[in-house]
Amino acid sequence: MAGETVITVVGNLTADPELKFTPNAVAVAGFTIASTPRTFDQQSGKWVDGDPLFLRCSLWRQAAEHVTESLTKGTRVIVTGRLKQRSYETREGDKRTVFELDVDEIGPSLKFATARVSRAARGTGTGTTGPAAGGGDPWSAPPSGGDLDAPPF
Amino acid sequence: MAGETVITVVGNLTADPELKFTPNAVAVAGFTIASTPRTFDQQSGKWVDGDPLFLRCSLWRQAAEHVTESLTKGTRVIVTGRLKQRSYETREGDKRTVFELDVDEIGPSLKFATARVSRAARGTGTGTTGPAAGGGDPWSAPPSGGDLDAPPF
Amino acid sequence: MAGETVITVVGNLTADPELKFTPNAVAVAGFTIASTPRTFDQQSGKWVDGDPLFLRCSLWRQAAEHVTESLTKGTRVIVTGRLKQRSYETREGDKRTVFELDVDEIGPSLKFATARVSRAARGTGTGTTGPAAGGGDPWSAPPSGGDLDAPPF
Amino acid sequence: MAGETVITVVGNLTADPELKFTPNAVAVAGFTIASTPRTFDQQSGKWVDGDPLFLRCSLWRQAAEHVTESLTKGTRVIVTGRLKQRSYETREGDKRTVFELDVDEIGPSLKFATARVSRAARGTGTGTTGPAAGGGDPWSAPPSGGDLDAPPF
Repeated sequence: MAGETVITVVGNLTADPELKFTPNAVAVAGFTIASTPRTFDQQSGKWVDGDPLFLRCSLWRQAAEHVTESLTKGTRVIVTGRLKQRSYETREGDKRTVFELDVDEIGPSLKFATARVSRAARGTGTGTTGPAAGGGDPWSAPPSGGDLDAPPF
Repeated sequence: MAGETVITVVGNLTADPELKFTPNAVAVAGFTIASTPRTFDQQSGKWVDGDPLFLRCSLWRQAAEHVTESLTKGTRVIVTGRLKQRSYETREGDKRTVFELDVDEIGPSLKFATARVSRAARGTGTGTTGPAAGGGDPWSAPPSGGDLDAPPF
Repeated sequence: MAGETVITVVGNLTADPELKFTPNAVAVAGFTIASTPRTFDQQSGKWVDGDPLFLRCSLWRQAAEHVTESLTKGTRVIVTGRLKQRSYETREGDKRTVFELDVDEIGPSLKFATARVSRAARGTGTGTTGPAAGGGDPWSAPPSGGDLDAPPF
Repeated sequence: MAGETVITVVGNLTADPELKFTPNAVAVAGFTIASTPRTFDQQSGKWVDGDPLFLRCSLWRQAAEHVTESLTKGTRVIVTGRLKQRSYETREGDKRTVFELDVDEIGPSLKFATARVSRAARGTGTGTTGPAAGGGDPWSAPPSGGDLDAPPF
């Protein structure tokens, strides 16, 4: 890939991540990050919170399961990925555009927390019994339509 | 500032930049960048264009005038700034959210172009005769409400 | 701060993080990240590893302790911070320059791992009994010389 | 490419860019950027310059010629690219490591300057009469060894 808009966001999950599966059993996690900048106010000599940025994120395959197992509402995370735009029509026929982050890597921030990290067994999932667990290796099948598909949320 | 979401975008201007002035004569430029990623398609062995990302940008003060003088519709630019979100209500009372880029630095890309660069005289503007030119130094006055204000577009 | 070179790196720790304390008991963690890019080789149709990037990192105060408790050699992490350069003279009088990352946020990547996250008690440290634990609040004292000081490694 | 360390730097050229050609006539430009951060000192209430970051950059093919024609010592630029590390041995047999930026896009900053942008004719170069001008299309030949080669500086 070339010319993608790479972006790193630090913020808190607004809710527990949601895990869903595509028809051919590929895991995808969806969640929203709220990132609040702080500005130093020279008059008061204090840091003040700015307007938060809310960014919808999606993450595919094995990492999707890891996120769902590891993170909960409120967790402070570091996320890096590619900024995307998706257009759709409302029932009333209005055109809308949303921004989304196609996540490449995510982890819980250690600024205010500690973490016990466990390496996942490669290629076998992590014991999750979702619709994917039934037969064969779900990861061997590409997502229907590719990474850029709208996630099933 | 701390905790802001810094982002770099490379793309083309969808139209000439618009220059406006706040009531106390501070220049602000508004424009939209279209950034189109390319993906290497392994099956065809070719690069294919992905969905473009359209990002609304605003830029304040002297640099706003420089942009308006230097860039036109179609120019390929490199922009770095902070990603912001702004909410508003439509006349029908619906809530909408837009993403915008508060530009810190911008320049024409030299990938497919050359440029003749002229250093601007500091603090005096660059010969623009806008509403700001009438009296005094408009740049000495802070923008009403600060950088985070909604630009007057 | 303005005009700093912000950078996000994903890679693996080359060793366990080292925790040290400044003379006035401020914690600082030091570690090195190895980041290995992959390139798609069109001829072979395979991804091949590129040359790794080794980046020395330092991280201050409470987060330094969190990192030391949470991460070990080999852990894949996401790090965001500011790229710095430091010059020094060797014993032979030669001038050398090193690049370092002043870490703002770090977390274990969930790409190949899961994590159990525990919120740290604010302002009290996390039970570490270092030289800082003796008396008073070590965090109330600024690091001698500021964040930009060379870490004591 | 995946997992590369993408970085955006804003700074000034420390000298005019140098243009060289590989044995099979591929242009490559080399230059160094000095990026100086500013920190707001709460005690004095003033912005103070921090330590500059010097970063060696290289840029290939047509853009290399555009840079050499357009930019000079002191020009403020925005650069985005991938951070690389290169190791070599000195004549005395010591191992050294340097950081370099493999530039993807560069442009003159419009913060303190204006620019007249001219679209380059595609694929024909821009009138430069270098060693490449003699015969055929030098750009059709890939650089010997690829983009990751050490530039001939």
